[in-house]
Amino acid sequence: MKFKQLQTPSRTIMTPGPVEVDPRVLQAMSTPILGQFDPAFTNIMNEVMEMLRLLFQTKNQWAFPIDGTSRSGNEVLLASCIEPGDKVLVPIFGRFGHLLVEICERYGAEVHTMECEWGHVFDQQDIIHKIKDVQPKIVAIVHGETSTGCMQPLDEIGKVCREQDVLLIVDAVASIGGVNISVDDWFIDGIVGGTQKCLSVPSGMAPITYNNRIEAVIQKRKKVEYGIATAEEFTQKRTNMIRSNYFDLAMIQDYWGPRRLNHHTEATSMLYALREGLRIVLEEGLNERFERHSYHEAALIKGLEAMGLSIFGDKSCKLPTVTCIVVPEGIDSDNVRKMMLEQFGVEIASSFGPLQGKIWRIGTMGYSCRKENVFAVLQALESALIRNGFEPNRGEGVQAALDYYGAPSFVAVKEG
Amino acid sequence: MKFKQLQTPSRTIMTPGPVEVDPRVLQAMSTPILGQFDPAFTNIMNEVMEMLRLLFQTKNQWAFPIDGTSRSGNEVLLASCIEPGDKVLVPIFGRFGHLLVEICERYGAEVHTMECEWGHVFDQQDIIHKIKDVQPKIVAIVHGETSTGCMQPLDEIGKVCREQDVLLIVDAVASIGGVNISVDDWFIDGIVGGTQKCLSVPSGMAPITYNNRIEAVIQKRKKVEYGIATAEEFTQKRTNMIRSNYFDLAMIQDYWGPRRLNHHTEATSMLYALREGLRIVLEEGLNERFERHSYHEAALIKGLEAMGLSIFGDKSCKLPTVTCIVVPEGIDSDNVRKMMLEQFGVEIASSFGPLQGKIWRIGTMGYSCRKENVFAVLQALESALIRNGFEPNRGEGVQAALDYYGAPSFVAVKEG
Repeated sequence: MKFKQLQTPSRTIMTPGPVEVDPRVLQAMSTPILGQFDPAFTNIMNEVMEMLRLLFQTKNQWAFPIDGTSRSGNEVLLASCIEPGDKVLVPIFGRFGHLLVEICERYGAEVHTMECEWGHVFDQQDIIHKIKDVQPKIVAIVHGETSTGCMQPLDEIGKVCREQDVLLIVDAVASIGGVNISVDDWFIDGIVGGTQKCLSVPSGMAPITYNNRIEAVIQKRKKVEYGIATAEEFTQKRTNMIRSNYFDLAMIQDYWGPRRLNHHTEATSMLYALREGLRIVLEEGLNERFERHSYHEAALIKGLEAMGLSIFGDKSCKLPTVTCIVVPEGIDSDNVRKMMLEQFGVEIASSFGPLQGKIWRIGTMGYSCRKENVFAVLQALESALIRNGFEPNRGEGVQAALDYYGAPSFVAVKEG
Repeated sequence: MKFKQLQTPSRTIMTPGPVEVDPRVLQAMSTPILGQFDPAFTNIMNEVMEMLRLLFQTKNQWAFPIDGTSRSGNEVLLASCIEPGDKVLVPIFGRFGHLLVEICERYGAEVHTMECEWGHVFDQQDIIHKIKDVQPKIVAIVHGETSTGCMQPLDEIGKVCREQDVLLIVDAVASIGGVNISVDDWFIDGIVGGTQKCLSVPSGMAPITYNNRIEAVIQKRKKVEYGIATAEEFTQKRTNMIRSNYFDLAMIQDYWGPRRLNHHTEATSMLYALREGLRIVLEEGLNERFERHSYHEAALIKGLEAMGLSIFGDKSCKLPTVTCIVVPEGIDSDNVRKMMLEQFGVEIASSFGPLQGKIWRIGTMGYSCRKENVFAVLQALESALIRNGFEPNRGEGVQAALDYYGAPSFVAVKEG
C-alpha cells in the first residue's frame, strides 16, 4: 500500500487557528456514531444547542452549528437575510471585514463600507453616525479581527441598530470562548463563532445564534424543498427564496427544531467534538476562561517585549487571543517561521494583504493557551531570530515570562 | 456539571446513511491536528486528492472534498457552473432529483425536468432525446437514488453530452465506493460522492471531482476575494461572479492547488477520517468492494423474501447499496422501526414524500455491509413485525441468508 497509516509530527500550534485540539475532544471524536434521527442523537443535538446558548450568553431559541468551516456561519446568516438590493454596512478594519463585503456582494446587496487603517478599530460613535447616514438593513462587522489582532468594541452599536430597525450581524470567529461576548446585552441579532480557535475543536463547524428579528426575516422567505415538502408547500410560489439551499437558515432551523425535517445529515463526529469542547468551556467557567486567555497573553507580550520585539497595532484595542509582532527590518519573516516549525515544531502565522511579511501572528487560544506553549514559542522565536540575523536580548524573553508567572529564582540578588 | 461525558448506546446502523464508521476511521480522527499550511498537512491534502482520483476512476487534476455535508458537493458544482438564465435539465426519479432542481432554481437556472415514477429509472435514450430537445448547458442527475433504492444507468449519456457540448454533473452520494462508477469512461464532467455511506466515514465532507471542461467555466468567473487579492485582482470588475463565496470552486481550487491561497481552514480531523476511509477502500480493492456490496445485498434480499416481504421498485435498476421493502398493508411502519431500535438497537430508515410510510429502506453500505449486520437486521425486523401484527414465515429469513452464505447444517435431510 502506497499510502501509509496516518502519522503526524508533534507540533506546538501557536497560530491564531487552527490551534491544538483538546485531548478530550480528540477522544470524543472516536466515539461510534449514531443515526441522525436516533433519539439518542437528537438529544445530543439539543444539548449542544443548550450549551451554545450559554457560550453566546443568550436566551435565543436558535443556537446550533452550521456544517462547514467558520465562514459558512457568516454566509448562512448573510445569505438568509440579504435580498438583492438590500443595503448592508460593513466597517472594515482587516481581511475578514473584506470577506463580509465579498459575501454580501455575491448575494446581491448594495454594500456600503467604511475603513480604518489595519491595526486600529473604529470609534463606535463613528459607526453609529454611519448607520444613521446609510440606513442599512444590516450592519455586518467583525469582532476579533484575526488578521490584525484588533478587537472592535461593540457594546454601544447594537442598541442603536435596534432603535433604527437595523440587523446587527457579528463575526466572532476569533474571539468566542476567549473573550467576553454578551450577545443579548449587546443587542446582537446574529453571530458566528469559530470552533478551531478558542474552543479548541477542529475546523469544520460554525456555531451560530440568532434572535427572533432574524427569524422573522427568514420565515418570510421560507420554502421547504421539493423532495420533502407537503402538497401545500410544494405548490408555494417560489419567489424571494434564499439563494442557497445549503445555507437556507429556515430549512436548517426546521432540522434543528421540533419538526426535525431532514435538510442534511448532521456531521456526527464533529458534533461530538463540539459537544465536548463546549463541556470543557463550561466546566472551566466563561469568566475563568477569559481570564486565562488574558493571563497568558500578558506573559507572551512581556516575553516578546523583553526580547526586544514590538507589538503591532493599537494596544488599546488589542484582541487578547491574537498577538501580532512587527517583523524587524530586514528579516525574512517566512524564513523565521519555517525554522521555528522545522527545528522546534512550533508554528506561528504570517498575515494577509498589506500585512503579509510585515507581521507575525501568535495565537493564545483554547488548549494552546497555556504556559508550556508560551515558553515554547518564546524559545523557538528567539533561537530562529538569532539564526536569521536579528539579535534579541538573549534569554530575556523567557526570563520575563518566568517572572510574570511568579517562578522562583534561586540566584542571590547581586549587590549593586 | 449538568452535561455528562458523551456516552452513546450500542447500535447496528442499517439505514442508507449515515452508516457505522469503520473503527480505523474513528481512531484516525483522534490524531492530534496539524496547522493548515504545515507541509505535513498539505502533504496529507495531496494524498487525499490522489486517493480520490482512484476512487472516482479518473485522471482529473481536481479531486478534493468540500467541507460540508453531501449536498454541499452538489451545490458547489452547480453554483459554480450555473449563471442566471442557464438551462439545466434534471431527470427526476426520487427525492434527490428534486433537490437538484431546488439548487438549480436558487442559482437562477431555467430548469427543465422529466420525471418517472418513483421506483423506476429512465431509459438512457429518453434522456438523450430530451437533451437534444432542450439543449441545456448542464444535465444534473442522480446516480443512486437513496430515496427509492434505484440506480440510473449513465454509461451512454456522457458521450452524448460531450458531443452536444453539455456538462454532465452527477450525484453519486449513495453509490460511490459501493458500485462501479467510472467517471472518465462515462464522460462525467463533475461528480459528488458521499462520505457517510459506502465510505463509512462520518458525514461532514463531500468529495468531488471535475474535469477541465468545468474548470474552464469557473475560471471565467473567478474573482479572488478582497482580503487576500493581489492589487491587480482587487480592482477586477466583479461581474458574473459565482453567487456564493463558500461554494466558489475557483477559489477552493486555489486552496487545494499549488497557490495554496487560503479560502477556508480545511476540516483537519474530517480529512484524517476521509484519508483513512479511502485507504481502507483501496486496500480492499474497488472491484472486491463492489462485489462485497452485491454479495451482502443478495443475502439480505433472500432473507427478506423468505420472510414473506416484497422488495420495492423495479429490480432491473436496483441500487445494490439500498434495499427498499414494501410495508405490508395495515402495518405502522414507524412503530416497527421504533421497536427495532429500542429493543434490538438496530436502525433502518423510512422514506420521503410519496413513499413516506410506504417503504422501509435498508442500507448495506461500507463497514455496515457485513454478515453480522445482515443477520441482525433480519432478526430484529422479523421480531418487530410479529409484534406489530404481521405474520412472517418465522425463522425463514435468517435461514435463507444462512443458506446463501453457505453455513453448514447438521440436521439430516428428512426422507420425503
